[in-house]
Amino acid sequence: MSEKIPYKIYLSENEIPAQWYNLRADMKNKPAPLLNPGTGKPMTADELSAVFCRELVEQELDNDTAYVDIPQEIKEFYKMYRPSPVIRAYCLEKALDTPAKIYYKFEGNNTSGSHKLNSAIAQAYYAKKQGLKGVTTETGAGQWGTALSMACAYLGLDCKVYMVKVSYEQKPFRREVMRTYGAEVTPSPSNTTNIGRKILSEHPDTTGSLGCAISEAVEVATSNPGYRYVLGSVLNQVLLHQSVIGLETKSALDKYGVKPDVIIGCAGGGSNLGGLIAPFMGEKLRGEADYRIVAVEPASCPSFTRGKFAYDFCDTGMICPLAKMYTLGSSFIPSANHAGGLRFHGMSSTLSQLYHDGYMEAVSVEQTAVFEAAEKFARAEGILPAPESSHAIRVAIDEALKCKETGEEKTILFGLTGTGYFDMVAYEQYNDGVMTDYIPTDEDLAVSINALPKVLGQE
Amino acid sequence: MSEKIPYKIYLSENEIPAQWYNLRADMKNKPAPLLNPGTGKPMTADELSAVFCRELVEQELDNDTAYVDIPQEIKEFYKMYRPSPVIRAYCLEKALDTPAKIYYKFEGNNTSGSHKLNSAIAQAYYAKKQGLKGVTTETGAGQWGTALSMACAYLGLDCKVYMVKVSYEQKPFRREVMRTYGAEVTPSPSNTTNIGRKILSEHPDTTGSLGCAISEAVEVATSNPGYRYVLGSVLNQVLLHQSVIGLETKSALDKYGVKPDVIIGCAGGGSNLGGLIAPFMGEKLRGEADYRIVAVEPASCPSFTRGKFAYDFCDTGMICPLAKMYTLGSSFIPSANHAGGLRFHGMSSTLSQLYHDGYMEAVSVEQTAVFEAAEKFARAEGILPAPESSHAIRVAIDEALKCKETGEEKTILFGLTGTGYFDMVAYEQYNDGVMTDYIPTDEDLAVSINALPKVLGQE
Repeated sequence: MSEKIPYKIYLSENEIPAQWYNLRADMKNKPAPLLNPGTGKPMTADELSAVFCRELVEQELDNDTAYVDIPQEIKEFYKMYRPSPVIRAYCLEKALDTPAKIYYKFEGNNTSGSHKLNSAIAQAYYAKKQGLKGVTTETGAGQWGTALSMACAYLGLDCKVYMVKVSYEQKPFRREVMRTYGAEVTPSPSNTTNIGRKILSEHPDTTGSLGCAISEAVEVATSNPGYRYVLGSVLNQVLLHQSVIGLETKSALDKYGVKPDVIIGCAGGGSNLGGLIAPFMGEKLRGEADYRIVAVEPASCPSFTRGKFAYDFCDTGMICPLAKMYTLGSSFIPSANHAGGLRFHGMSSTLSQLYHDGYMEAVSVEQTAVFEAAEKFARAEGILPAPESSHAIRVAIDEALKCKETGEEKTILFGLTGTGYFDMVAYEQYNDGVMTDYIPTDEDLAVSINALPKVLGQE
Repeated sequence: MSEKIPYKIYLSENEIPAQWYNLRADMKNKPAPLLNPGTGKPMTADELSAVFCRELVEQELDNDTAYVDIPQEIKEFYKMYRPSPVIRAYCLEKALDTPAKIYYKFEGNNTSGSHKLNSAIAQAYYAKKQGLKGVTTETGAGQWGTALSMACAYLGLDCKVYMVKVSYEQKPFRREVMRTYGAEVTPSPSNTTNIGRKILSEHPDTTGSLGCAISEAVEVATSNPGYRYVLGSVLNQVLLHQSVIGLETKSALDKYGVKPDVIIGCAGGGSNLGGLIAPFMGEKLRGEADYRIVAVEPASCPSFTRGKFAYDFCDTGMICPLAKMYTLGSSFIPSANHAGGLRFHGMSSTLSQLYHDGYMEAVSVEQTAVFEAAEKFARAEGILPAPESSHAIRVAIDEALKCKETGEEKTILFGLTGTGYFDMVAYEQYNDGVMTDYIPTDEDLAVSINALPKVLGQE
């Protein structure tokens, strides 16, 4: 194409995808089903519907339908902040003096600050459609809780967020954004649930954990009529909703005849990565095209690169269904020095299966190197990236610097999932030169991996 | 026009204006010149060039050239975050159940979080072009300092920011954003300048003021070879650069045949308002069209609505040139309970002259009413607005509610200057119901207004 590619490739609003793409439909080896931890048998739709909204359960279990219509109401909401731009990183390329061509899909241009809103509005919509009064969820760093609060405010749905107590106290700004959108934010553990009261009586000084917050949110959802529990990552349904990222990206690049050689995304539970790569992986699975696809995870929480592919609990409270995934064990707790998200012990079952089958690579990076990349990116491109997103930036820069050495003009695409405005404590540590790295030892990991639940024939 | 107007009207990158528009060229009564406080005579280009960059001085003094070419390098930078969208507030209209059509120009989609970047890159560019090593400035709330840091990082220019000490300590996140972009941020008053040392010796416990920070920044600029001082509001040159906001807005609305009945902007020093209204006011001055134009200021700092049109110092330190403007007196200090920006005692000379000549209206609003509007807007439109911008939202909502009563289908345009991510302490006060209002008494204002400098025939 001779046309000069603009800095920002915007689609028009009528080019927002009409359908989500379900990657599982094109997988020969489907992701393993969720198991009932009591019976060891696959969770039925009825069992799941006690916790999740009905239509979301259908999406969760459907491994066959390739395209799912996006309801009109969700498309209208998407128009408030979508299509999001694909940006050509001209300034970063210049700063790196690389022949590589770098593109990134920027999902941070909305108040939730990240891609989380794509699934939040979908989950809130189906809850509303089911006639529910509200939803419950947990949040750690707060991006998911913020996104869900916004979606619920828009639809007039009640939103109860259990926020890990240490974050509630140390990240008051995220908390206040959620409250501004009308959410009820409770520090977890709390005395509003049985499990919260039990934990508080046993550990009165605990600062909470994501596992405990999940347990409280699920308890409230299942014990209050008209409420269901929603989750921002890991689940198949979330990857389905997030496919809007990849579909828009592919449409935008196709307009200019651009085909990425390598696609890079950060991976915590997999919501962003699964969404970004969806249509590209689809082509790869169908044998229509090939791409290098790279998941980037923190060295402090290396599910793909050092975890085990096995059935495990999604929550540390061990009350949720078992999922087959790359996991460090549900009792693994990442070092407190780790900044930002990507702290989940496991990984999307879908992405785990694809990684297991050799369709994608994974690398882990240390956090000071991540913030070095974040600073370089911010100064060149203007955007202050979230720590999570900066994992992908680190590897994109490394790939571009390899091109500088070899002279290759590779096309690199990465996902910029969000902005770092609420992560300035971590930036301050980096600016002050006091940020440290942490890599768990093999012995550390053996403890939690050896504690994996005994399921079926699993060793 | 029968075409459905999208939620977001985006121009393409080649529709970024090629020229800034200088409103002063179309004014019959030009803004009064800056005066040398020592001689009482108009400041010459040479005098101003000791403090400001040469080309910026020319822009400051030029009341005749209507269009100024935007240098190619600045246009390239603009492409990183411009054109910014004009958004049709469909969701807010629905929430208000109003027949009014509401549009807003959103300038918050960049890391500086506001429109300030439009002038920051221009001022940094001319400094670089002049061969300077760096620039100095002051910042209060921090949006200007952030914007300037980003622009300087991009151009490889040194950036020294004097940040009012109380903000430096209470807004550490803004400070860290500036540091991430490589700026040197010093709490003011500091021991790095004569005036800082003097103030510290007299008032060792002072938490600083904008006036003091200006004085320190100017001292550093004028006593270090290769440095100049830059300012983010009030000046004519700033309004020139910010005209890009209004020019883009007008192009976007023209595409759909939309003509606003009323144009609303918040006003502190006037940088946003002057930019937003520029081409519309130009038409009004030339008799080609008519628009209601409304400046919105805080009731706690009511320069237009309760100030005096007179020569005054721009800084509380009384070292800067005298400007003729609506002012509360340079010794006026807004109540500490006031959240966010818009705390400046004076107002752009250009806007002051236009207001004096009857081309625009002004209203003042109280801050709890402002945050009530901000919350309503956030829940409907998704975007979390800055407190400053929310002053305009308040009046836009009031206008839309009047239309609901009268049934009029007015078209309302307002400027959404930025996002409130770094203002969550104020939102927390509002969420907790402890925010209070403050309106200075006539006696309060008389003290500072009576202390206006004696200049020429001024009473």
